[in-house]
Amino acid sequence: MSEELRGNGESTAFVPGHVTSFFAPYPDDDPERAGSRGAGLTLTDGVEVTVRAAEDDAPPVTLDGDPIAMPPVEAVLDGLGVADRARVVAESDLPLGTGFGVSGAMTLGTALAANDRFGRKRSANDLVTLAHRAEVEAGTGLGDVVAQARGGVPIRLDPGAPAHGRLDGVPATRRVEYVTFGDLSTAEVLAGDTDPLVAAGDAALTRLVDRPTLPTLVAESRRFARDAGLLTDRVREAVDAVVDAGGEASMVMLGETVFALDSGLTDAGFDAEVCRTCDAGAHVTG
Amino acid sequence: MSEELRGNGESTAFVPGHVTSFFAPYPDDDPERAGSRGAGLTLTDGVEVTVRAAEDDAPPVTLDGDPIAMPPVEAVLDGLGVADRARVVAESDLPLGTGFGVSGAMTLGTALAANDRFGRKRSANDLVTLAHRAEVEAGTGLGDVVAQARGGVPIRLDPGAPAHGRLDGVPATRRVEYVTFGDLSTAEVLAGDTDPLVAAGDAALTRLVDRPTLPTLVAESRRFARDAGLLTDRVREAVDAVVDAGGEASMVMLGETVFALDSGLTDAGFDAEVCRTCDAGAHVTG
Repeated sequence: MSEELRGNGESTAFVPGHVTSFFAPYPDDDPERAGSRGAGLTLTDGVEVTVRAAEDDAPPVTLDGDPIAMPPVEAVLDGLGVADRARVVAESDLPLGTGFGVSGAMTLGTALAANDRFGRKRSANDLVTLAHRAEVEAGTGLGDVVAQARGGVPIRLDPGAPAHGRLDGVPATRRVEYVTFGDLSTAEVLAGDTDPLVAAGDAALTRLVDRPTLPTLVAESRRFARDAGLLTDRVREAVDAVVDAGGEASMVMLGETVFALDSGLTDAGFDAEVCRTCDAGAHVTG
Repeated sequence: MSEELRGNGESTAFVPGHVTSFFAPYPDDDPERAGSRGAGLTLTDGVEVTVRAAEDDAPPVTLDGDPIAMPPVEAVLDGLGVADRARVVAESDLPLGTGFGVSGAMTLGTALAANDRFGRKRSANDLVTLAHRAEVEAGTGLGDVVAQARGGVPIRLDPGAPAHGRLDGVPATRRVEYVTFGDLSTAEVLAGDTDPLVAAGDAALTRLVDRPTLPTLVAESRRFARDAGLLTDRVREAVDAVVDAGGEASMVMLGETVFALDSGLTDAGFDAEVCRTCDAGAHVTG
């Protein structure tokens, strides 16, 4: 197989979804140092991104068949020097804008698949850095890309791209359920006063590091959502219903979305989507 | 599910096999700083480790049904405070002592499964560190554990456990074949003059970092094996046969084992085992 161009003319990458349990934003003038501390779950529900040669009559980027403008995806293609040569076709298990890191997944998946398709010879860390920078500069995410690159249940100890950030993880696997009621604007929340987020996020992280288990992660997420004032009525009611039924649930940061461990939402009577924590981080599939 | 003790009484972890393509040993008095630089492939063929409560009439550690003494496995159980309480049952796709990191896989798998089974509440990095220390102190491995924890095609930029080491990767997936002719003693090679290994390993790493692709990794492995004087006749003949047939192959460090990309060994007439690069690093499976 040529290093310059794969024989079948296209390359595909899978990137897991990522639900952030809690976070503390850390902006920085350098987008490779900017990011967030926090923790979350990567999911077997994710985004499959295929990159092939550009076609005159096809839109450059599609998500589930529809043309879409994604500035961080375009920035990644530009960074790899293939902006006018690539077509990006993304298929997602997850809704956009509801807290699953679909934007980060499309961006990182584009980096992995375009590098493979066009033989750009970048390392894994280089591609994660490129995608992280693009997300930060577009204002679409702070921590999803590095978490999605790792897989599992990532703990983001320090913010930033691989050269600066530091990751750990909760060593566990679990069934995960979720329901989505609507979207929330990450940009809007981050444009407000973020001091309460930083205080609540850092406190939650300290407690999770002291006891890195899934029940701690979910309990700290509930406390964070409450302390940071992010709960909507529908989310609060659903989380309470799961907890009342003996389960573990919290709000997804940032979406009007609730996630639960095991069959927590089903047990509380919700018609939930079902997946698992994802053992693998983002990767080329072929 | 209780954090203290899982309901079904046992926990299982999967750890991918790891073939080292080239390496430079970096000993250190501190086992968390000791290790190796280098690169390799993690494999979907690996080791499944189940940990359950000790039983009076059962051997504490078995591999494929046979009792086995594994000092690093015992060290990990001791480090988690469960040395007399745990029984370790390992099932391997791979032969021991032939360069696939089976010792590292058993050690890391025991750390992950015992932490889960006995609710020890350690983080992923803590468990990798515990397993890496145990392997270094037992003299059974220098870089397998951190590579197996990452998955994919790991590049070990700096040696040591997570707090000190630094990893990158080749962002690719591929079919991998292998044949094993016999075993080589890692301890014996490391007890000799390691200066040629360090020189050849560091040079190979510099070239791979400059061009992080699978063909480079295999070509650098061949050059390393030759420069470090590790080739046996049987290995040399098999590698040459694959290359003559147009394929990419090299020697596994350290075993009398040959690996090839795609169908390289099959195409050259060998009856090879077939697997793939492993997208996921070591993880609890249930």
